[in-house]
Amino acid sequence: MKKFLNTVDTVLSDSLRGFGQAHADIVAVNFEPNFVFRVNKPKGKVALVSGGGSGHEPLHAGFVGYGMLDAACPGQVFTSPTPDQINAAAEAVNTGAGVLFIVKNYSGDVMNFEMAAELFSGEHASVITNDDVAVENSTYTTGRRGVAATLVVEKIAGAAAEAGTDLVACRALGERVNRRCGSMGVALTSCTVPAAGKPTFSLSEAEMEMGVGIHGEPGRRRVAMTNADSIAAELVGAIVGNLKPKTGEPLLLFVNGFGGTPSMELYLMYDAAARQLQKRGLDIARSLVGNYVTSLEMAGCSITLSRMDEEMLRLWDAPVHTAALRWGR
Amino acid sequence: MKKFLNTVDTVLSDSLRGFGQAHADIVAVNFEPNFVFRVNKPKGKVALVSGGGSGHEPLHAGFVGYGMLDAACPGQVFTSPTPDQINAAAEAVNTGAGVLFIVKNYSGDVMNFEMAAELFSGEHASVITNDDVAVENSTYTTGRRGVAATLVVEKIAGAAAEAGTDLVACRALGERVNRRCGSMGVALTSCTVPAAGKPTFSLSEAEMEMGVGIHGEPGRRRVAMTNADSIAAELVGAIVGNLKPKTGEPLLLFVNGFGGTPSMELYLMYDAAARQLQKRGLDIARSLVGNYVTSLEMAGCSITLSRMDEEMLRLWDAPVHTAALRWGR
Repeated sequence: MKKFLNTVDTVLSDSLRGFGQAHADIVAVNFEPNFVFRVNKPKGKVALVSGGGSGHEPLHAGFVGYGMLDAACPGQVFTSPTPDQINAAAEAVNTGAGVLFIVKNYSGDVMNFEMAAELFSGEHASVITNDDVAVENSTYTTGRRGVAATLVVEKIAGAAAEAGTDLVACRALGERVNRRCGSMGVALTSCTVPAAGKPTFSLSEAEMEMGVGIHGEPGRRRVAMTNADSIAAELVGAIVGNLKPKTGEPLLLFVNGFGGTPSMELYLMYDAAARQLQKRGLDIARSLVGNYVTSLEMAGCSITLSRMDEEMLRLWDAPVHTAALRWGR
Repeated sequence: MKKFLNTVDTVLSDSLRGFGQAHADIVAVNFEPNFVFRVNKPKGKVALVSGGGSGHEPLHAGFVGYGMLDAACPGQVFTSPTPDQINAAAEAVNTGAGVLFIVKNYSGDVMNFEMAAELFSGEHASVITNDDVAVENSTYTTGRRGVAATLVVEKIAGAAAEAGTDLVACRALGERVNRRCGSMGVALTSCTVPAAGKPTFSLSEAEMEMGVGIHGEPGRRRVAMTNADSIAAELVGAIVGNLKPKTGEPLLLFVNGFGGTPSMELYLMYDAAARQLQKRGLDIARSLVGNYVTSLEMAGCSITLSRMDEEMLRLWDAPVHTAALRWGR
């Protein structure tokens, strides 16, 4: 394993310290328990708190700031944050309007966020994301996995909270966004968890994992490597078959890198996915391309489609100022 | 070689098509000759034109837009753009105030931009970046290589051009920024050029290339892999020794990923570099962390320091709206 680190035990805290310093205008970091929270937060708005295992950066800490999250709780790499940690973050950012927890559907995350919600003194509600259409149940989940649509839920619910929307309506909106998203990914290589020191799984030079999860969990099947157009056809086909967007409905096309795939290939996959949608007479209204919901240095990508509506488009376009997503200010 | 592509010959054009579609609000793409140019460009400003081999994305196409470049000319992977291609871009974006060419110091790039300047019908000037302190001459250069400081030159000269600064002053500013920057990088793995189909070089599990260039060119020496603090000490030590920043001078600390290194490790390297600067009593005034000047999927990073002054800070902070750098609007 070759990684930039000092000791395996301090990877997370060393990295969080750097993140906090590099983005001190937007966030601050609390250590033990670890959470990243927004500075200059207005009083009286619903606070959005998310989190999960580290190794998916910029998700979630990179989305803390104006118009998105109020706090993010990073667990150790691919390990859920603890209930105490989540509760501490929620108590720190609640200003009386309550807390909306946004949780990816993994058994450990769901359980720990539920326990945190029980500990938490304020009003609260939760949205559980489960956008991955690849498999119905998986290694770490009952039901579908929550993956890249979590960004879309956080952006749109975050913009609503910033505009003064109350807790009940923020939750309903988050659930609507989640229902209107579908994702599927493919891995060309494994990643290496620092504490493990060796690749999570192995793929030969001729193989890829179709439908992979963001921790390297198995997907639908291991298949022969093929060209970008065929990969895009399978991913878009699976998502469209599940999500059933209507002709004329505005779509967000989000091509997400898993960390180790160059920008050039992600835009090439965007082009391939866009042609798949155009062939079906579907309209791309918004686009996002980049490494946002990653799996350390895994080579691979996922495609997410969101069936937008007028309110979702308006909230997607609303100003956001975080380390990883920024526009309009 | 496992990459998302259809055919090796169409990697660049397929990717550019995706880039143009995903960012149609900011740029348009001209094919044959290939260049990416800004849409909604005001008349009468100096036009900034850059370019170089592909594979370093988001450099340069990701920096086309308000407050930065007017056009970028991507060559094939790690191959200079042609004089005709550069001239076509310059003619397309010149609105009468002239063109500033920003060129990384590689022999092929310098020669082709010089030939383009001779073909070009308008007023023009050039800035050649050469911030890499690792080696005095290299595989592809006479003199030092131009690397990540190119982003800093493009951002600051771009903000000045947007504010109406004339060609002579934009060139002088670009040259001043270049003189005030130093960079050095380290590679943990090679990358694979699609047309070659195999890694450019090989490094064992125990080695790294200290002072590597952004095409995988040899650096100072091949050394045993060590911890992040020791790597940061060598990179920062070399840059500071060359750049000689003064106590109290505001610095930009830019930790740049080469493409295959996760965000978590880049922030960890930021923390390690920041401690090196603090130990020397130096002040970090601005920060940038991410994959900006890459080498396809190479694992590794570079550190760039810029000795900022009041004008540079003001222009760095000025609004920018490109695919890869965006703030203030």
